[in-house]
Amino acid sequence: MRIGLDMMGGDFAPAEAVKGVKVYLDNVASDVHLVLIGDEQQLAPLLTAAQLDQSKYSVVHSSQVIGMDEHPTKALKEKPHSSISIGFHLLKEGKVDAFISAGNTGAMMVGTYYSIKAIEGVQRPTISTLVPRENGSYGLLLDVGINADCKPENLAQFALLGSLYSKHILKVNNPKVGLLNIGEEEGKGNLLAQATYPLLKENKQINFVGNIEGRDIFSEKSDVIVCEGFTGNVVLKMAESFHEIAVKRNIHDEYINKLDFESYGGTPVLGVSKPVIIGHGISKGMAFKNMIQLAQQIIDSKLLEKIKESFVAKEVQ
Amino acid sequence: MRIGLDMMGGDFAPAEAVKGVKVYLDNVASDVHLVLIGDEQQLAPLLTAAQLDQSKYSVVHSSQVIGMDEHPTKALKEKPHSSISIGFHLLKEGKVDAFISAGNTGAMMVGTYYSIKAIEGVQRPTISTLVPRENGSYGLLLDVGINADCKPENLAQFALLGSLYSKHILKVNNPKVGLLNIGEEEGKGNLLAQATYPLLKENKQINFVGNIEGRDIFSEKSDVIVCEGFTGNVVLKMAESFHEIAVKRNIHDEYINKLDFESYGGTPVLGVSKPVIIGHGISKGMAFKNMIQLAQQIIDSKLLEKIKESFVAKEVQ
Repeated sequence: MRIGLDMMGGDFAPAEAVKGVKVYLDNVASDVHLVLIGDEQQLAPLLTAAQLDQSKYSVVHSSQVIGMDEHPTKALKEKPHSSISIGFHLLKEGKVDAFISAGNTGAMMVGTYYSIKAIEGVQRPTISTLVPRENGSYGLLLDVGINADCKPENLAQFALLGSLYSKHILKVNNPKVGLLNIGEEEGKGNLLAQATYPLLKENKQINFVGNIEGRDIFSEKSDVIVCEGFTGNVVLKMAESFHEIAVKRNIHDEYINKLDFESYGGTPVLGVSKPVIIGHGISKGMAFKNMIQLAQQIIDSKLLEKIKESFVAKEVQ
Repeated sequence: MRIGLDMMGGDFAPAEAVKGVKVYLDNVASDVHLVLIGDEQQLAPLLTAAQLDQSKYSVVHSSQVIGMDEHPTKALKEKPHSSISIGFHLLKEGKVDAFISAGNTGAMMVGTYYSIKAIEGVQRPTISTLVPRENGSYGLLLDVGINADCKPENLAQFALLGSLYSKHILKVNNPKVGLLNIGEEEGKGNLLAQATYPLLKENKQINFVGNIEGRDIFSEKSDVIVCEGFTGNVVLKMAESFHEIAVKRNIHDEYINKLDFESYGGTPVLGVSKPVIIGHGISKGMAFKNMIQLAQQIIDSKLLEKIKESFVAKEVQ
């Protein structure tokens, strides 16, 4: 298994990316070979200092970097030798089995759309966030920002994609799917939620438990919460801000600390045919390590094959 | 000034309503006369025990109660002698200058629409929530639930209504208006946010400061945050849940305590021609006291006249 990692992406690259590689290689026993994409001259001293097992990685040189604020499409076009462009090229050609970057999110999304296809039947790939719960388990909220306007069918697909992720990666048995809404009963909500409810209710591939209100996002009422990317993004960023407020106010609490979403690593793009993981710009060593591990889990669990099968099954129904 | 109060509305009525009346009358010097609407037999012993200044209130008997889960329109029709029906009747007839209830929210909204008109030019009345900030001041978020689907023009009107409330009730000088969105730059967001941005930017009656992300809701970046009622309701309920989680986890923090929105009292219905305040079902004494005080402030500040003038000015522009 070969996992490609953009060493130049993120605010603290390449130093924190190297740290993440070290923690992963030193602690996780696996047959993963890491393909580190970045500027050789910058990487060489860091990699030497890290004293890594040289059989476990190789370096692919990239001479360009896409900045965090560059226009995604333009940057990808004008910088074919950037770490992100090379990463997608390697993924497309099958030279790596997954690609990870904490770089320009827009460029990662555009690269994903252009380089690798959506899984047949998936209308809109989606990104998600883990939702920590007090009992130590994790829920999943999706979409969290790339699909700001959605149709009911999109939300129904997010429900299936999220269920499969919850089951195969988060190891939740028969994950409960909730529809984010502003009332408990069927018929409540905006037009989108009203039209989505029956689609989720009818869908035999998921375990729909009904509407979930804002107060229940962090509860165990559901394992997968679906919404359009506008509300999802507001929820995610607001939860992050609570963590920041708690830190600023010197509140130390094991659970509140888990609202530090930045430490989780990144979000996979769900619904595309190869594993792509997009990291937070401010990813540090542990986030990079977690992203490598997540890529490995996605490959090991054959998640994408399960998604393909489910969407084929859906077409046949 | 006569303020009507539904003594039978809310989970802890009438006992907590009486407590609120007592705290108000004992502590706030004003020429307010309270019109207490409720079951005389239930109220009599509570009012006697409370030892109130009898010149400061009168009781209007109501023989029916609309339950918290009753169908709003049906209940109002079938229960003309309910405290809510009588309250709106008194308000419509000018027998009270404001009406407050912590009862069935739907019945309060329907009652508002049917009994008193929207201010000329206001397309959609709206409800809001106070947003506590770390510096001790309060922002305003609206709509928080009664307008789940909105047009750009609705949001632009919420911006003006919120600005006037912020200025005249929260005493914020030249309140900064932000558009809740999922990116900072103009052009970001869903179709609604994209179309609303230029309307806010052009509007000379407000001080528009641009997009506000989920992470900035509790910051001082803006004093008034506008959004459709779906996202606003999710934000409100999620913030409440953080307070609940903090309480459960034994976190004691002055600021986090302010996320206990239930203690604030209620939300006025903005955009209608007479003051109506809707309280949380679980309102306790302090919440009732705060609602009475808010009704008084709304009348004292002549907020509704200012709103009328602003919307007339808007029509003329």
